[in-house]
Amino acid sequence: MAKHRVVIVGGGFGGLNAGKALKHKDLEVTILDRRNYHLFQPLLYQVATGGLSPGEIAAPLRAIFEWQKNLRVLMTEVTGFNTAQRLVQTRMGDIPYDSLIVAAGAKSTYFGNDRWSSIAPSLKNIEDATSLRARIFGAFEEAEKENDPDKRRALLTFLIVGGGPTGVELAGALSEIANDALKEDFRSFNPEDARIMILDSGPRILSAFSERLSKSAELQLIQLNVLCRPGVKVVDVTPEGATLTVQGRQEFIPARTVIWAAGVTGSPLGKALAEATQQELVRGGKIAIEPDCTLPGHPEIFVIGDMAHFQHGLERPLPGVCQTAMQMGDYVGDLIKKRLEGRTKPAFKYWDKGNMAVIGRNHAVAQIGKFEFTGYIAWLLWVVIHVLYLVNFQSRIIVAIRWGFDYFSFNRGARLITRPDPPAQES
Amino acid sequence: MAKHRVVIVGGGFGGLNAGKALKHKDLEVTILDRRNYHLFQPLLYQVATGGLSPGEIAAPLRAIFEWQKNLRVLMTEVTGFNTAQRLVQTRMGDIPYDSLIVAAGAKSTYFGNDRWSSIAPSLKNIEDATSLRARIFGAFEEAEKENDPDKRRALLTFLIVGGGPTGVELAGALSEIANDALKEDFRSFNPEDARIMILDSGPRILSAFSERLSKSAELQLIQLNVLCRPGVKVVDVTPEGATLTVQGRQEFIPARTVIWAAGVTGSPLGKALAEATQQELVRGGKIAIEPDCTLPGHPEIFVIGDMAHFQHGLERPLPGVCQTAMQMGDYVGDLIKKRLEGRTKPAFKYWDKGNMAVIGRNHAVAQIGKFEFTGYIAWLLWVVIHVLYLVNFQSRIIVAIRWGFDYFSFNRGARLITRPDPPAQES
Repeated sequence: MAKHRVVIVGGGFGGLNAGKALKHKDLEVTILDRRNYHLFQPLLYQVATGGLSPGEIAAPLRAIFEWQKNLRVLMTEVTGFNTAQRLVQTRMGDIPYDSLIVAAGAKSTYFGNDRWSSIAPSLKNIEDATSLRARIFGAFEEAEKENDPDKRRALLTFLIVGGGPTGVELAGALSEIANDALKEDFRSFNPEDARIMILDSGPRILSAFSERLSKSAELQLIQLNVLCRPGVKVVDVTPEGATLTVQGRQEFIPARTVIWAAGVTGSPLGKALAEATQQELVRGGKIAIEPDCTLPGHPEIFVIGDMAHFQHGLERPLPGVCQTAMQMGDYVGDLIKKRLEGRTKPAFKYWDKGNMAVIGRNHAVAQIGKFEFTGYIAWLLWVVIHVLYLVNFQSRIIVAIRWGFDYFSFNRGARLITRPDPPAQES
Repeated sequence: MAKHRVVIVGGGFGGLNAGKALKHKDLEVTILDRRNYHLFQPLLYQVATGGLSPGEIAAPLRAIFEWQKNLRVLMTEVTGFNTAQRLVQTRMGDIPYDSLIVAAGAKSTYFGNDRWSSIAPSLKNIEDATSLRARIFGAFEEAEKENDPDKRRALLTFLIVGGGPTGVELAGALSEIANDALKEDFRSFNPEDARIMILDSGPRILSAFSERLSKSAELQLIQLNVLCRPGVKVVDVTPEGATLTVQGRQEFIPARTVIWAAGVTGSPLGKALAEATQQELVRGGKIAIEPDCTLPGHPEIFVIGDMAHFQHGLERPLPGVCQTAMQMGDYVGDLIKKRLEGRTKPAFKYWDKGNMAVIGRNHAVAQIGKFEFTGYIAWLLWVVIHVLYLVNFQSRIIVAIRWGFDYFSFNRGARLITRPDPPAQES
């Protein structure tokens, strides 16, 4: 008898856990990803700010599944779905499945202002991170050569649009760059003069946290010289700066670096899947799924992670965070195995392990069950959990060492300015 | 009295050591570089082969000189020289000097076949290394999807043009990739089927070493499944493979990856300086310098490192290696300080500390004075020396750990395929 074929689209947290859960002799599992590595996205902001190197937060998918011989990895791009014939369409041709797990994640959205994307880069992948790193450290390099005080001020102004965890993490890291890592590095200006601002359209930053933690984060950011401006709406972004509306008034802030951390929307593959199966996308470009994570009317198709909208009896839909994706991956992998054995499995149940956002050295907020932590304790929790969750052992040690060094030396070692195009001439 | 202004062009080994030697209260030192980091070039092949991350072999120039307050770093591109008015011309304007140290290094040369450069990439900077890494690991990814045995064979054939230390290091690392790191990673072919070949036009590989060591290297390479083919001339390179002439006969080898490690020529800034001062460039695009490393007729201009041709009484000109550049940097820095104090300094004298090339795990050749080492002992020497010479302490520890892991796990952790252009769509 032919083996049951499972195809997983995406090697992020959801796809990875689903793949691992599918260790079973009667299965033929295929993971499709456009990248050859799994990315530990929660630490991507560290690459963008020169704290870690890309190779330290990414693990080759093949290395992860080296010994799981029922699973193959194919590096290719998925272009669509033929659900009637049960085929995944890819650049290398159609791939048949008996069960399909779609876990293609989310991408940044500019809410209709896509032309801002080249001016105000966002942070979703390694290339984003290395180019943002070049922008940030490049701005300081330019400032060293700039004599005009207004231009230098614009070079040293960093606007972060969006006060969610990514925005807060970036702002905190930028503050450490300006106030610690680069402190002694320039001769014509003081890096501590850098202005770092978080712009958020909502009433407060970190709105997924309690008001108390949100307030604490704001106070911690002020200690780090970061200004939070809630209730402002960005109406235009140009290479010269950003225009905001604040309580009806317009305001222009000259800034050469604007970073977009304002929102994500489900992968375009969600749209492709919705069209193939006559579903409607819900808010945020997501797909509403059944209590067992399947697509309505398609028990053989699972949608998990940032692409999925799961509400069933909950006050708010499940958040688009790693633990949602990981738990769904585990669940779906196990469900497929149970089905093969003719068994069933109760509906997916999310276990909220807590929520945390790091702000900077010794600064963070964390909520675990009924407990809330701020400052040093929250930061320690964050460090320990993030080192432990890194996929492979080698990364864990290297990241721990990098952070140990950076903590005591107040430095950042990985702040290379690299360029997409190799230069014509060496120097 | 105005301070004596020293301008250093290039933050490689020569420029770095010159800068460090110029700690002196009566000096104003400026280092100009197009990059914001010093690159430890001897380990660049490790980045290209996924053993190390770029941030682990590069150190920010500003961090290196943080506390040397008489020195500023400017990230800019030098475009030429006005030696009559003592100005360095750059993208940010002219920079005046009293003493000038030109240490802009070398670049790869295709000996007039520049159109090969996009097909057969070379390895001189971080961007080269990350794009070569994408080519190498991408070839294996393609092979996993390829059903045609001839095409797969071409995907798994790696030609290295040039049997100098870089070519040998790359070949050895490729062998480790195919035979160790990726061993269990593919489902449709065996990575050990990869063919790795060194093509060299000379009579033997590693011609800078003794015949005995050169022979030993060849035998060690054979143990690693690398074939050395001396006496072959590459006459054409296309995306399908390379055409050679061997003893008058033509031969075509189908290969999707051709790596160029065949030759370097002095930086184009050498030509600019030669034209500005009516000098002739010597073989290899280098500038012949005086016994005190100055440009003939210009005691205020020093040319050091890979740009310099220094022969004075020697059988062969000094080799274009790190230690030449470092020693010249030390010498020139000290000479400038001595001159300020009205003192003199005897001619530059090169101290040959030895020469080594690593071939792979437990395989290397080394010559130190009259002593020659091969195999495990040579490899151990190479590891210890390369870890010790890394510029900053953090890199030393991280590289040591990475290597420790890779040695015992036979793996390579940093094998990301990243692309110059961010993708249009996420997966």
